[in-house]
Amino acid sequence: MSDPKDFFNIGIVGISGYGGGEALRLCASHPNFRIIHAAGESSAGQKLIERFPGLPAPLGELEIQKWDPAGLPANLDLLFTSLPSGESKAALAKVPAKTRIVDIGGDHRFADGWTYGLADVWPDKIRGATRVANPGCYPAASLAALAPLVAGKLVEPEGIIIDAKSGVSGAGRGGGNTFGYAEVNEDVCAYALLKHAHVPEMNQALSQLAGSAISLTFTPHLVPMTRGILATCYARSRATTQQCLDAARAFYKDRPFVRVLDKPPHSKWATGSNLVYVTYAADPRAGIAIAIGAIDNLGKGAAGQAVQNANLMLGLEETAGLGAAPIWP
Amino acid sequence: MSDPKDFFNIGIVGISGYGGGEALRLCASHPNFRIIHAAGESSAGQKLIERFPGLPAPLGELEIQKWDPAGLPANLDLLFTSLPSGESKAALAKVPAKTRIVDIGGDHRFADGWTYGLADVWPDKIRGATRVANPGCYPAASLAALAPLVAGKLVEPEGIIIDAKSGVSGAGRGGGNTFGYAEVNEDVCAYALLKHAHVPEMNQALSQLAGSAISLTFTPHLVPMTRGILATCYARSRATTQQCLDAARAFYKDRPFVRVLDKPPHSKWATGSNLVYVTYAADPRAGIAIAIGAIDNLGKGAAGQAVQNANLMLGLEETAGLGAAPIWP
Amino acid sequence: MSDPKDFFNIGIVGISGYGGGEALRLCASHPNFRIIHAAGESSAGQKLIERFPGLPAPLGELEIQKWDPAGLPANLDLLFTSLPSGESKAALAKVPAKTRIVDIGGDHRFADGWTYGLADVWPDKIRGATRVANPGCYPAASLAALAPLVAGKLVEPEGIIIDAKSGVSGAGRGGGNTFGYAEVNEDVCAYALLKHAHVPEMNQALSQLAGSAISLTFTPHLVPMTRGILATCYARSRATTQQCLDAARAFYKDRPFVRVLDKPPHSKWATGSNLVYVTYAADPRAGIAIAIGAIDNLGKGAAGQAVQNANLMLGLEETAGLGAAPIWP
Amino acid sequence: MSDPKDFFNIGIVGISGYGGGEALRLCASHPNFRIIHAAGESSAGQKLIERFPGLPAPLGELEIQKWDPAGLPANLDLLFTSLPSGESKAALAKVPAKTRIVDIGGDHRFADGWTYGLADVWPDKIRGATRVANPGCYPAASLAALAPLVAGKLVEPEGIIIDAKSGVSGAGRGGGNTFGYAEVNEDVCAYALLKHAHVPEMNQALSQLAGSAISLTFTPHLVPMTRGILATCYARSRATTQQCLDAARAFYKDRPFVRVLDKPPHSKWATGSNLVYVTYAADPRAGIAIAIGAIDNLGKGAAGQAVQNANLMLGLEETAGLGAAPIWP
Repeated sequence: MSDPKDFFNIGIVGISGYGGGEALRLCASHPNFRIIHAAGESSAGQKLIERFPGLPAPLGELEIQKWDPAGLPANLDLLFTSLPSGESKAALAKVPAKTRIVDIGGDHRFADGWTYGLADVWPDKIRGATRVANPGCYPAASLAALAPLVAGKLVEPEGIIIDAKSGVSGAGRGGGNTFGYAEVNEDVCAYALLKHAHVPEMNQALSQLAGSAISLTFTPHLVPMTRGILATCYARSRATTQQCLDAARAFYKDRPFVRVLDKPPHSKWATGSNLVYVTYAADPRAGIAIAIGAIDNLGKGAAGQAVQNANLMLGLEETAGLGAAPIWP
Repeated sequence: MSDPKDFFNIGIVGISGYGGGEALRLCASHPNFRIIHAAGESSAGQKLIERFPGLPAPLGELEIQKWDPAGLPANLDLLFTSLPSGESKAALAKVPAKTRIVDIGGDHRFADGWTYGLADVWPDKIRGATRVANPGCYPAASLAALAPLVAGKLVEPEGIIIDAKSGVSGAGRGGGNTFGYAEVNEDVCAYALLKHAHVPEMNQALSQLAGSAISLTFTPHLVPMTRGILATCYARSRATTQQCLDAARAFYKDRPFVRVLDKPPHSKWATGSNLVYVTYAADPRAGIAIAIGAIDNLGKGAAGQAVQNANLMLGLEETAGLGAAPIWP
Repeated sequence: MSDPKDFFNIGIVGISGYGGGEALRLCASHPNFRIIHAAGESSAGQKLIERFPGLPAPLGELEIQKWDPAGLPANLDLLFTSLPSGESKAALAKVPAKTRIVDIGGDHRFADGWTYGLADVWPDKIRGATRVANPGCYPAASLAALAPLVAGKLVEPEGIIIDAKSGVSGAGRGGGNTFGYAEVNEDVCAYALLKHAHVPEMNQALSQLAGSAISLTFTPHLVPMTRGILATCYARSRATTQQCLDAARAFYKDRPFVRVLDKPPHSKWATGSNLVYVTYAADPRAGIAIAIGAIDNLGKGAAGQAVQNANLMLGLEETAGLGAAPIWP
Repeated sequence: MSDPKDFFNIGIVGISGYGGGEALRLCASHPNFRIIHAAGESSAGQKLIERFPGLPAPLGELEIQKWDPAGLPANLDLLFTSLPSGESKAALAKVPAKTRIVDIGGDHRFADGWTYGLADVWPDKIRGATRVANPGCYPAASLAALAPLVAGKLVEPEGIIIDAKSGVSGAGRGGGNTFGYAEVNEDVCAYALLKHAHVPEMNQALSQLAGSAISLTFTPHLVPMTRGILATCYARSRATTQQCLDAARAFYKDRPFVRVLDKPPHSKWATGSNLVYVTYAADPRAGIAIAIGAIDNLGKGAAGQAVQNANLMLGLEETAGLGAAPIWP
């Protein structure tokens, strides 16, 4: 199944941000990737090693470019882009068609010509695609947990509640005091009540899985950690815990990055990896099913899923470059 | 309203635990309290200053006793007890009737002869009581948020969901690796799915407020912080955000420790205090109301509420010894 | 010893910063202080309660002013100022002479007409002063530990090394990514090697205590916590541990905020308080003495010491408003 | 240089501890290692996947054994042992001679027949050795920083001071409240003043490098993080910063895991890797040189260095299995 090409030339845009930096880390160890281009606003002109002092020596010598879609190397096979919302739509339209793109940012999740990259659920749509929009970090955790229940009609489509807890790196760099250590440590808070930007994305994906419109309420929370998302989802259901687990195990059969557990996962079990852990607990008499998903927001929630998408797009093994076990503790 | 007595003689049992220690800290600054007795299993025989090196000098000289309900000082006016579950029922039966008790532990929340000490909601029941069972930490946060909606019939009694996030001190001392820094930092997890010990307590209090049986699903989470609980509650409702806020402001009129906010609170805004912050967001078309409560689990969730209860029992100002602003950041 | 006046009118400038905010917190509970003026750059026009949602209700209604030394209330007895370096020198010259000032910022530590406010060491110089420059946070911890050894000539004046570890709030607000949670958590680093701004201040104070010039090397470190400083100091010495402890106990006899311990202190034992813990360990054969000081950088390292200085300046009990036990855990 | 054998059969003892777990993580991705044996006291009888839910599926099926040196697989090429102090000396004597051993624990650092595994400094001694004692975590950081200065006689051998800051995982699992989140977060403390167990090891290694006896003072500190050590070392010296940097660059020429920087490193730059960062700052007039080393205590301080040692012992590329970039943030 491996591609006739052994190596692909890779570019990464947005290297100064956390998502772009994680893409760099994963690509640096990828057995089939050769990073030939890196771009970043605040770091242009520096060598990679100045920003990432732990990179292997030869890669560290690569100079960071100012992002310019018209100035990409001609032999670039695939470009990862991780830019602030609103900054990539016009720019990516200028990237030559032969250069595949995985957009880690949020601008193309509903765009014509782009494929939604929920790789564990719809890998076949991604194989061969040339423009893939990576899911948001909250949807990555929430959809992984809910997809088997919604697709299997084990839950009602109305009144789904997603209560998600995220580490700080999900907000990207540059948030100022709001994300300063002194104010985040020893604190938990909810935000964007009833109006988070990821709701339409989750609505669309779940409605597609359900085959009909669903409705959901989503509450994101900031918790004092750097990485990790735990999404605790509640749905009206008459299913048992075992039925939920069985449905998930069948749904994710042979999917390499999804671990269906019979106990609640810790977000930390995913740190540095592309894994997603899901579990379920249900009380048919009370009419409620709980579905939990745990990820590293920079892994499955950003760069890990992006590399998985790239593997699918390029015809590589889906797990190439993503096999390292998570870091714990 | 102040008591004819200026000073009350206070004892604290369970000084080695976090709840007992916090009761000691609050009582040490209380203008009407004189701590004459302290007991603790692992610290008996030490002076208080050896365990609490920041205590004011005279109090620090008090020797910690082995806990013995038959050996309490005869002139003890009120005893705070903070013992592990199951350890206080038989023992507290031996405390002389003239010594009032506030039990911070969980053994008397449904016990005959005891008053449930949800002080911000039912202060009048507590005034004059001699045996008060302090609410659990999760109920303290959750009930504060839900009480106005449930009492005001702004939400349906069925299908309430409480998704709570707690710091580690809520688990008490001595939890081993599970609560070790290396395993808790950079982690969030759910636990006790569909079976947490605080559910009956919340059920009972909410049913009493509703005037009929309610049903709820409760999911506690451990987040990497020492103190703090944020309870995010979801209920089926046709109310608007404004109606919820108005109901809460009326419900808590002149209650000194409840702050009704029109933005989501941070748990950290309560650190070291007996405050509880609540807020609301609702979408009548979607049929959902969100109620959020934020506390310090050792303050309003344990020792702060205990002192508030003691103030009510002793006829003191409700805020005596509890007026210090929270610590931030 | 208490002042004929029961209440003093207090102003606080720099309320948006961490040091100013902590001064507000302490003054709000001070039995002899009435806060009548608060100023802050980023919060001017708001009520205090909007910035500090846990403040007692009446104080919370006070409106934050734009900082203007010419527009201070005429009846202001004392002003706390906590402004970024370089911003207070010209401004404070305009404050009327009858308004006492404690400058928490760094601009007046070597200024003519100002008294250096190392309150535990030189209280008599501060009593009756009208312009007091609060020590820096690192000097507050380091000098407390070293003063008894240097003053008692138990150590050589040459080659003193101070290795200090600080929480993030010491850097003030607004530091950007460098102090962001994602980059500070799980990290420790040294900075400003051989060139930190606090060195001259420590040099001057220690030389004064020694009666001759001393020389020192100072290395500050940032550790992942909000509050707290631990200063580990090394000096050449032939003294024993006991001699060091004895010297410190004599030096700090009856000083209410200094705790001389025979075991290493935890920075957390000081959280929220004006306490400083010191301990000593020495090996006369190896010729080394270790002196350790632990504080809350916003307490003894900023606002706590400032209130202590104000108490001394105003003829109040030195401990007024500073008696609350530290928060732990 | 690569071994005629492509794969070596590997065993890991002490899988329940943090060091053993990290060895497992690194070995699981090692291109030349096949893990055929895993032993652990508290986890015996479980499958690896039950303890390490993120492991690749086939490895996860391996059953954890009770540790028994007499019951090792006959075809075991190399054994990593990570046991509490005092528990491995008698046991490892029973391991067949043909099975190479890297002891991550502390029992063999001065033992006859064992080679001290400071791999970045003395790789040639390790090549071909069959019994290697991995350095302690503090020595790994401290010796890396000091070795070039001591070996190059740029510093005096007397009066060296090492002030080290460690994350909590260095204490191993099972430390109880002392290492509980509630007590470690927001705290920094020194411990084991003038008497830490790692001093003789550092003394011996530095004396060997110096060619004569050295003397040092070592103060370990616990800081609130899971992983990471920063060792700030002070030595009497007339060298300049540039001379120190030059000496280090020459000393570590072509050593793949040591990064000599001209700015202070962050411990977090090493997370998950076998890297060690060193830097220097010196003031010849003051007669002081500062040498700083930063590592991941479970990487270079334990399992990373152990794998590096194993690579050297087995004739593999020194960097095999250790090439992944550190995780940041």
